Amino acid sequence: MKKIRVAVFGASGYAGEELLRLLLRHDGAEIAAITSRKNAGEPVSTVFPRFTGLPLSFISPDEAMSRGDFDAAILALPHGLATEFAIPLLKKGVKVFDISADFRLKSTAKYQEYYKTPHPAPELLKEAVYGQPELYREQLKTANLVACAGCYPTSSILPTAPLLRDKLVSPEGIVVASCSGCTGAGRKVDLPYIFPECNESIKAYAPVGHRHLPEIEQEMAFAAGVPEVKINFIPHLAPLNRGINSTILLNAMPGCTLEKVGASLEKAYGKEQFVRILPAKRCADTKYVFMTNCCEIGYFFDEHTGKVILTSCIDNLTKGAAGQAIQCMNIRFQLDEAAGLR
Amino acid sequence: MKKIRVAVFGASGYAGEELLRLLLRHDGAEIAAITSRKNAGEPVSTVFPRFTGLPLSFISPDEAMSRGDFDAAILALPHGLATEFAIPLLKKGVKVFDISADFRLKSTAKYQEYYKTPHPAPELLKEAVYGQPELYREQLKTANLVACAGCYPTSSILPTAPLLRDKLVSPEGIVVASCSGCTGAGRKVDLPYIFPECNESIKAYAPVGHRHLPEIEQEMAFAAGVPEVKINFIPHLAPLNRGINSTILLNAMPGCTLEKVGASLEKAYGKEQFVRILPAKRCADTKYVFMTNCCEIGYFFDEHTGKVILTSCIDNLTKGAAGQAIQCMNIRFQLDEAAGLR
Amino acid sequence: MKKIRVAVFGASGYAGEELLRLLLRHDGAEIAAITSRKNAGEPVSTVFPRFTGLPLSFISPDEAMSRGDFDAAILALPHGLATEFAIPLLKKGVKVFDISADFRLKSTAKYQEYYKTPHPAPELLKEAVYGQPELYREQLKTANLVACAGCYPTSSILPTAPLLRDKLVSPEGIVVASCSGCTGAGRKVDLPYIFPECNESIKAYAPVGHRHLPEIEQEMAFAAGVPEVKINFIPHLAPLNRGINSTILLNAMPGCTLEKVGASLEKAYGKEQFVRILPAKRCADTKYVFMTNCCEIGYFFDEHTGKVILTSCIDNLTKGAAGQAIQCMNIRFQLDEAAGLR
Amino acid sequence: MKKIRVAVFGASGYAGEELLRLLLRHDGAEIAAITSRKNAGEPVSTVFPRFTGLPLSFISPDEAMSRGDFDAAILALPHGLATEFAIPLLKKGVKVFDISADFRLKSTAKYQEYYKTPHPAPELLKEAVYGQPELYREQLKTANLVACAGCYPTSSILPTAPLLRDKLVSPEGIVVASCSGCTGAGRKVDLPYIFPECNESIKAYAPVGHRHLPEIEQEMAFAAGVPEVKINFIPHLAPLNRGINSTILLNAMPGCTLEKVGASLEKAYGKEQFVRILPAKRCADTKYVFMTNCCEIGYFFDEHTGKVILTSCIDNLTKGAAGQAIQCMNIRFQLDEAAGLR
Repeated sequence: MKKIRVAVFGASGYAGEELLRLLLRHDGAEIAAITSRKNAGEPVSTVFPRFTGLPLSFISPDEAMSRGDFDAAILALPHGLATEFAIPLLKKGVKVFDISADFRLKSTAKYQEYYKTPHPAPELLKEAVYGQPELYREQLKTANLVACAGCYPTSSILPTAPLLRDKLVSPEGIVVASCSGCTGAGRKVDLPYIFPECNESIKAYAPVGHRHLPEIEQEMAFAAGVPEVKINFIPHLAPLNRGINSTILLNAMPGCTLEKVGASLEKAYGKEQFVRILPAKRCADTKYVFMTNCCEIGYFFDEHTGKVILTSCIDNLTKGAAGQAIQCMNIRFQLDEAAGLR
Repeated sequence: MKKIRVAVFGASGYAGEELLRLLLRHDGAEIAAITSRKNAGEPVSTVFPRFTGLPLSFISPDEAMSRGDFDAAILALPHGLATEFAIPLLKKGVKVFDISADFRLKSTAKYQEYYKTPHPAPELLKEAVYGQPELYREQLKTANLVACAGCYPTSSILPTAPLLRDKLVSPEGIVVASCSGCTGAGRKVDLPYIFPECNESIKAYAPVGHRHLPEIEQEMAFAAGVPEVKINFIPHLAPLNRGINSTILLNAMPGCTLEKVGASLEKAYGKEQFVRILPAKRCADTKYVFMTNCCEIGYFFDEHTGKVILTSCIDNLTKGAAGQAIQCMNIRFQLDEAAGLR
Repeated sequence: MKKIRVAVFGASGYAGEELLRLLLRHDGAEIAAITSRKNAGEPVSTVFPRFTGLPLSFISPDEAMSRGDFDAAILALPHGLATEFAIPLLKKGVKVFDISADFRLKSTAKYQEYYKTPHPAPELLKEAVYGQPELYREQLKTANLVACAGCYPTSSILPTAPLLRDKLVSPEGIVVASCSGCTGAGRKVDLPYIFPECNESIKAYAPVGHRHLPEIEQEMAFAAGVPEVKINFIPHLAPLNRGINSTILLNAMPGCTLEKVGASLEKAYGKEQFVRILPAKRCADTKYVFMTNCCEIGYFFDEHTGKVILTSCIDNLTKGAAGQAIQCMNIRFQLDEAAGLR
Repeated sequence: MKKIRVAVFGASGYAGEELLRLLLRHDGAEIAAITSRKNAGEPVSTVFPRFTGLPLSFISPDEAMSRGDFDAAILALPHGLATEFAIPLLKKGVKVFDISADFRLKSTAKYQEYYKTPHPAPELLKEAVYGQPELYREQLKTANLVACAGCYPTSSILPTAPLLRDKLVSPEGIVVASCSGCTGAGRKVDLPYIFPECNESIKAYAPVGHRHLPEIEQEMAFAAGVPEVKINFIPHLAPLNRGINSTILLNAMPGCTLEKVGASLEKAYGKEQFVRILPAKRCADTKYVFMTNCCEIGYFFDEHTGKVILTSCIDNLTKGAAGQAIQCMNIRFQLDEAAGLR
């Protein structure tokens, strides 16, 4: 069978490294190009020594564009820049899987509010499909432009969507408290991210107005079937490399029980290979999804306050970025959905 | 000036180690006895090599009781056992500073509900003063029995109490999401606490019904002047040694503003040497309270949802246990409140 | 093609978990039995939640023995116990890959000296092939009993053997200083291994007479073609989960140069897929072999003291245990040597 | 009693932070100036939030020089720059305690070889006293310029010097393998030092020609009474914040025994308050010197190879930098040697 050819744009960060790791063991896809403006011309092993010995080199994004010999492009680029590449790629007929935030928000107003700049290509927003396979699998099968879900949003939306859809919980008063490992900040060279500053430290950041907030709210509103949802989302930085834990508090609707919560999750995800529902009253642990494409979900019912409490863990670089992009790509190209991801 | 003599009961855990570290540099107190049933007769350095060379040995608690040559006893014992020692110590006129949970809850019903056993000495509960110096300093000056505040409660109650007292926030719908370092579990030798299980892992635990919940609720109710408060308290275990971060969400009352929140905290703690109010919109960090007796508090106002968001950090072994006990002791004996704690 | 059937004995530790992880993605082998005396009857996911959803359960070793429906057995058992199972398994014609130390030492006297008990089956020692594929590939092709190389030995012997063989370095005065992550101690529940004791700590242990010493010396002697080698081997425990770094100092023989060292390593391993020789004067890093079956080797020539300095990194659970066992098994059964290990 | 006034030059790094922490609890010294070119004019708490609330601000080094109202200056400056300040400070009669490497090497040739530039003030080298109080206490009492010992050198020289002096070990063939926490690299903002690169990683670096090598060799030669010593010194970077472990292998001289090694160390350091000799055959642990000014030393005799093996731990920021500078200062000003350091 002919393998699909994949170009990875902006591959010198942690999501890029993870994309390469996964694509190298993908038996239905092959790497057609790996771009990095800064590292063009260098072997990939210069930046990621783990790939020493493999015949992989960075090329400039322009060279990749002019070659154009690929079926799919995964964009691990900063927001804004992703759009600049998406437009000509789509014109060439290349399927685009964007890991940046450029096409996630359906509302250009929200984009402007949170990114402080007008949306660079509003006409593409309608076309873009949100890259959360468990929720949008059908649409992904024919999507040309996929806005892969963010890491915090994935860990928040997946456990919550079925309960909102089934009216077991209220869309009002939702609180999401998340902790992320340090690769979540990207491969950023800045004082707050050096080892002695992060190690033995845990702290909240951006507890008001984090850029993932409108994305989470948008998808929760879609799931609940309401025009708008307002939540509190509080991210924390924790001293580990990979992993996000989200603890989610929701107001139970009348009649909601622990069993109904479990049944709703089971109905939604019982056949999913990348979602794992824990037995009732067990907490998810990032350890158990480390370097996997899995989302692990635990659920509780707190009689004391009438809340449903969900805990959910993903690997931010896999299910929260590279793995999910590949899962979307597999769906789009009718490959085994788990290829490269087992 | 004559130094007060202090006995440390149950000194072979991390709180015990911290008590010794602090007492050794306390210029108004001296160590009269260090007990450990298991290690009686051994030099303290057998258990804590950092004390090698110091003339300190464990004795059995019974021997300490029969000697009785001390003014204060700090109990770092399991709950239940603490009461067994507190009763005879109080009879001898020794001031008791209990780090266990035995005397924290005013309600014997709550004690029974959360500890699954009747309270061992209900008659002492009225006498016990809650050991949170910033809130109960006056009562501590004459207390014979001090129920030192727990670690999670300290990090939750200190930032919240002034806002509840000043009616800036509602006592309803409070959410506390906390992350604790691994010494919070004590020096417990059990599979979930070995390094490879904790490292690179973050997870919630006991999101419903944690034993610190009723303690937090009790003190929040006192601060709000209401008979009962029901909150959600979700602890998480994070891969660091020392430190608790609590992120607290509260419903703002009409008229509440960011400035009023700051003013309320400033009024309550502006003169406190162990509470540090950050400038508005900055997050607390466990790193900045590491091995100190300080509680650092940050505050935000979320217009989007009408919530006040507080972040608070303490060192769980210092302000959350040993340091706070010593601070209480200093107040009781009219010593410099910061002796041993700078 | 028919898959070979593999039984994993003693699968409740970290090496067992890694064996399952690797075997599950092995396309030429299938898991026939997973034993654990303690956990017999339980789903594997009870012990390793990452395997939730997979139809895997522990059975007792006795049940596995009575079934006997497998071609290969990998023993992740304590030393001594491994022999008890190896004997009847070999009689049944099952190929045995032992991760314990039982069959590594050719000298029963050394075994007795380091393990304080007579060797339980000296007659098998001649038959056993040392499980270091890069050095014993030919013998492994027909071996019935494979004594898989230990973790520290693998990281020490692989970089050193070619230089000893090529007489570029002296077998006298060798020093190996190694640092291991905490999974190296196994899934041991003991005070020194709880998180707060290991985190922020680095220390040597057993600097004289570690049990891996005679194994390293034996293989160095074989490589050098001398009857005996005496070295210093100093292991350290470092606060990470997985990975061993070994720094090895060797006395250069007259005529030895940096280039000759590089050429010797290149000649030995240039075609190996699981050994990576770094460019001259670069240090190996555990990060780059994390969760891979690779051994990364760096080399230096110190003109100042006339020493060759090698640095070598492996993942102790993969190349140092489970991965190497599977590599040996693949060779024995004429499978793709890298199956399950890419 | 009048306190001595101390200026800290270059206080915006980790050694600077530690100097402030220690000086703030020093009862015989007060901080007269804290300089930082980059942060001049800012409160110290901007850089180190733990000092929030204290009336401390950075001034420019030039302003500090023009004020000149201090008795002692501790220089935490880059090498080269330290000399530029030391010269005028000495002229003013200020006692200088230099944490940089500028005055450690007695040989200008070695300085040029390792620092690739001629020594900026060779005439001062004779005057400079090496700042290792346990070895040079007498000279420090009258020193005007103190070249505080480096971190790796302190951990290597302290355990070794007595044995070389007492001819129990040979000055030939010494190997020092050290592991350092990440603050050892300073507060350097560079890709190799961000959390995800350091965490779960252990590696050697600069195994040939590290800049601390000639310093260690110089002091070992002095101790042995020989003109030159050549050793191997291999530093490693380990994923912890603070702490150095050095494992040192030395060739025993004829007649050397474990007991003699212990007696030699005891004779040298039995009365030292900042050196702790462990019982024979126990390994030092960075955990037990964390945030203390102590050097912990363990010792072994390896009959197998005739080596003495020493393990030694210090906190690199305290005994390896700031604490040792203060200890030297205390000696120079006839203060309690442990003031600020208990």
